[in-house]
Amino acid sequence: MTIEQKLEGVRAQMRTAGVHACIIADVDPHQGEYVADRYRCRTWISGFSGSAGTVVVTLNDAGLWTDSRYFLEAEAALSGTSIVLFKDGTPGVPPFVDWICSRLSPGQVVAIDDAITSVTQFRSIQAACLTHGISVNGGFDPIPGVWTDRPELPANRIFVHEERFAGQSRVDRIGAVRRLMGERKVGGYLTAALDDVAWLFNIRGSDVAYNPVALAYAAVTSDRALLFIESGKVPDDVRAELVRDGVEVAPYDGVGRFVKELGSAAAGKKITALSLPPDKVSYRLLASVPETVRVVEETSYVVKLKARKNPTEQDNLRATMVRDGIAMERFIYWLETHAGSEPITEVSAAARLREFRARDERFVGESFRTIAGFGAHGAIVHYGATAETDVPITVPGLLLLDSGGQYLDGTTDITRVLPLGPAPEQAIADYTTVLKAHIALATAEFPDGTSGPQLDTLARSVLWRSGMTYGHGTGHGVGYFLNVHEGPQRIGAQPQPVPLETGMYISNEPGAYRTGEYGIRIENLVLVQEGRTTRFGKFFRFETITLCHLEPDLIDIRLLDEQELDWLNRYQTRVYDALAPHLSAEEQQWLRHKTRTL
Amino acid sequence: MTIEQKLEGVRAQMRTAGVHACIIADVDPHQGEYVADRYRCRTWISGFSGSAGTVVVTLNDAGLWTDSRYFLEAEAALSGTSIVLFKDGTPGVPPFVDWICSRLSPGQVVAIDDAITSVTQFRSIQAACLTHGISVNGGFDPIPGVWTDRPELPANRIFVHEERFAGQSRVDRIGAVRRLMGERKVGGYLTAALDDVAWLFNIRGSDVAYNPVALAYAAVTSDRALLFIESGKVPDDVRAELVRDGVEVAPYDGVGRFVKELGSAAAGKKITALSLPPDKVSYRLLASVPETVRVVEETSYVVKLKARKNPTEQDNLRATMVRDGIAMERFIYWLETHAGSEPITEVSAAARLREFRARDERFVGESFRTIAGFGAHGAIVHYGATAETDVPITVPGLLLLDSGGQYLDGTTDITRVLPLGPAPEQAIADYTTVLKAHIALATAEFPDGTSGPQLDTLARSVLWRSGMTYGHGTGHGVGYFLNVHEGPQRIGAQPQPVPLETGMYISNEPGAYRTGEYGIRIENLVLVQEGRTTRFGKFFRFETITLCHLEPDLIDIRLLDEQELDWLNRYQTRVYDALAPHLSAEEQQWLRHKTRTL
Repeated sequence: MTIEQKLEGVRAQMRTAGVHACIIADVDPHQGEYVADRYRCRTWISGFSGSAGTVVVTLNDAGLWTDSRYFLEAEAALSGTSIVLFKDGTPGVPPFVDWICSRLSPGQVVAIDDAITSVTQFRSIQAACLTHGISVNGGFDPIPGVWTDRPELPANRIFVHEERFAGQSRVDRIGAVRRLMGERKVGGYLTAALDDVAWLFNIRGSDVAYNPVALAYAAVTSDRALLFIESGKVPDDVRAELVRDGVEVAPYDGVGRFVKELGSAAAGKKITALSLPPDKVSYRLLASVPETVRVVEETSYVVKLKARKNPTEQDNLRATMVRDGIAMERFIYWLETHAGSEPITEVSAAARLREFRARDERFVGESFRTIAGFGAHGAIVHYGATAETDVPITVPGLLLLDSGGQYLDGTTDITRVLPLGPAPEQAIADYTTVLKAHIALATAEFPDGTSGPQLDTLARSVLWRSGMTYGHGTGHGVGYFLNVHEGPQRIGAQPQPVPLETGMYISNEPGAYRTGEYGIRIENLVLVQEGRTTRFGKFFRFETITLCHLEPDLIDIRLLDEQELDWLNRYQTRVYDALAPHLSAEEQQWLRHKTRTL
Repeated sequence: MTIEQKLEGVRAQMRTAGVHACIIADVDPHQGEYVADRYRCRTWISGFSGSAGTVVVTLNDAGLWTDSRYFLEAEAALSGTSIVLFKDGTPGVPPFVDWICSRLSPGQVVAIDDAITSVTQFRSIQAACLTHGISVNGGFDPIPGVWTDRPELPANRIFVHEERFAGQSRVDRIGAVRRLMGERKVGGYLTAALDDVAWLFNIRGSDVAYNPVALAYAAVTSDRALLFIESGKVPDDVRAELVRDGVEVAPYDGVGRFVKELGSAAAGKKITALSLPPDKVSYRLLASVPETVRVVEETSYVVKLKARKNPTEQDNLRATMVRDGIAMERFIYWLETHAGSEPITEVSAAARLREFRARDERFVGESFRTIAGFGAHGAIVHYGATAETDVPITVPGLLLLDSGGQYLDGTTDITRVLPLGPAPEQAIADYTTVLKAHIALATAEFPDGTSGPQLDTLARSVLWRSGMTYGHGTGHGVGYFLNVHEGPQRIGAQPQPVPLETGMYISNEPGAYRTGEYGIRIENLVLVQEGRTTRFGKFFRFETITLCHLEPDLIDIRLLDEQELDWLNRYQTRVYDALAPHLSAEEQQWLRHKTRTL
């Protein structure tokens, strides 16, 4: 089926249904970062498979909106089709909603499937359209009628995340949700976020890429806890354990009826108020809540609960970091001793790194697609090497390597810049500046109530002093054997008024990028820990837990002050002491040199 | 009339109108920081006159909500009345809206006068009440029927703010608004903010305290510019000048009809879209917009335009700072040479400072009530000395002095801490820490697109390193012979995603407060200026324009690094060079010592 045939198929249904524009994206009802192939409707209709993009089909036109990461890839994909590329963020290019409003006349209809669109996004599109007299049809979905070879939903089996890893039983987790329900005076809690469900019930799955989760919903009331999931995905022993702990395993598509019956006696105790996260639940699910039930739209309780890693999780993470660090060091040693003498490319290096990680028996998979950017590719912030873009890793050159693992006992995410052969002066200066920024955040002390965006400047302003900056956040929350990007906390320039609290797990990753030359980023993961208490209140600090050496040949110690140099030397010593016992004699000797006192 | 009689009068009308709770505040239709006495309804009914507070009257109860600045004052005012004090921000104390929702039953009615309540606040109250089934009556106002000796509206005459001061004609300013209207595709613009009106038409007034503004509205369409103001307040020559420039002077209460007739031919060209700021326009005015007119709720165009001071304004401000600095230095010299030997109190010192400022012929008044906090009073962030709280200024001791002037050619705002006699070691350490924080912000370089909250941390984190912080923002926007607090830019921990731009005028005022001992704050005003451009883009920097010495006896230079000491010495030299020529020989000699190289 050609793209033009797909477009025509969609348009035929639009005409029948009286729809004048149709919005198509790679979205599922759970609003995660990755979706199953069945939900990649935008990829299917446009041939463009980047991680961000929206297609709009009108009766006469079609457009694809994506951002600068994907301009080249999208141009190639759309070449020869009637879909026009709209470069988001380019001057004069309207957002797709504005474009729709400018093309449609008052009284016309735009369709977006409200079964897969979040409450937040649906309302935002609706509000924009309504000011132009355009109405929104949430019930129209042309895809099933046209996409004949559409993949089925994934049917992978779930498994239990053992309590020795999770540090808390599912009974206690459900109890914690009920306590928050009590505080907020709501009788019910619902979430569609897959990592919420996995955390709440101590289960894991493999239905989407990189995130160890399964397609499911969760609901909690004062006397019930429900897991909505395709029955065949639940092995008997898992089911038995869930039932033992009072969890009802209900059909995946039963969540709609469950919500409809809230407020009536059919679903057990009558519910008068239901808490749900509007950014994670579909508009259709919200719309099916009975009128007698008050909806409290707020951050998911599980998001709040899982953000603070418990003491067991923290201990496990520290141990996981040793094993992840060993894999990293072995890889770097291998790369340094083989680059230039045998053919290595970005893609093959990433694969090799995965092998080193996979030697660990608790390794489950990568936590995201490895960014292995050699030379100029390192300056492309979200670069991911593919067969088309892959280049050989040669000497001299700088490799930016951003990667992470999913382990039963934790999720990792680390970025290092590896110099192969002598590095240019400018790169040494930049690496040192980024290191200073990294240290500024790593050593921060901040009072109770401080949010991530307040700390972003600690790192970023170090770059400013050198007339530099970077176009991404400084840190994101990280899950525990869950999504590598996890809210609610974030360290970035954009507002995110969530106070940092003990046990929060977050990345520290300032960078500097010289287009066409190279990229520098230094990323460690940190845990928020309680610090001193003064008459001004309680203070917090960061505990850096990632273990992998920083590159001495890229550091100009003349640019470091005494505290910075001290931090660096202590970190390098910690890395050596923790990892060396697990390395070979040659690797040990090499690492001792890498972590020598500067 | 006693407070109980007033409450009973209000309740009688509530019963007649079927109202179960009534919200009463000191608010006028223009949403400014200061209101005319006629609008001080909360002060009238409760006897409490602090700058923040809301009274709620139900058929059986009455409560006053205010914040910690006013707990003592409010307790005293309410003593012996049936009004209960609710201490906002205290654990367990619900916000007044939550309290209302918990006291009223579904179907009952709360009243708040929508003629004086902003769109934003009215909607927020309405949303909270609606979730509890409580309806909001915006048309009920019990005050006129009970407050018999209510003051009239102020009738002060306006005057022209000359172009040599403003740097731009009103014709150009109206044109600038029309350009923004064109960009946003709206045919009309409306504002109720008094400083918006004053800036747009280059007029000033004296209807409220401290802000040199007059009660008025402004509207601009593609072919009309209207000033809605009480006719008697406009002198003939001012009216002639306005008419010459195409401004129609319309009756103050004509704004309602003007809005109602938008969209019909009666008001000139038909308007299909109207821009207005929902935080500055009353809900009633919004509700009177005809259905055929689309309302675009956004930041007032004038707020954006006046935030960036033009080159004339900037030059004038620099000159004004010399005159304001002279008054400050003369006052400090006087205080140091008289304290201890003659009776001086906080209140008398503030009056004396006003006298020094008033010697300047362009001085119009103070820009806010002077904060003269001696000793422990200095630690009360919003302290304002009154007859009741006034204390003698004695030696030794620290005086925190936060004050400012309204001049025809600019508005000033400055804080200095003045040591009388030897200061404690801790105060010297604190002053030096606050100075370091002040310098960190003063010397910041930041890229295009940076917002104020991103810079807050530059100053605040200096305090964090010493286990300290402060409970207020680091900087607020400042008007030009207008409100001393002016948006949209602000440097604080709370989100305010407004990029700083050339010409923005803003305060730099970190502090440290030791309850029961003293307070430290160092405040200068700065202008945003363009800095260098690198391959990473354009950078901005601050130009500090306030001129008044920093206190050498409170600085421990061992705590300053080389750059900080250099900044300090250059600032002190600049102060001396600018001000000394205007001082007496004794004052010169004294200032030379104060500004000596450290």
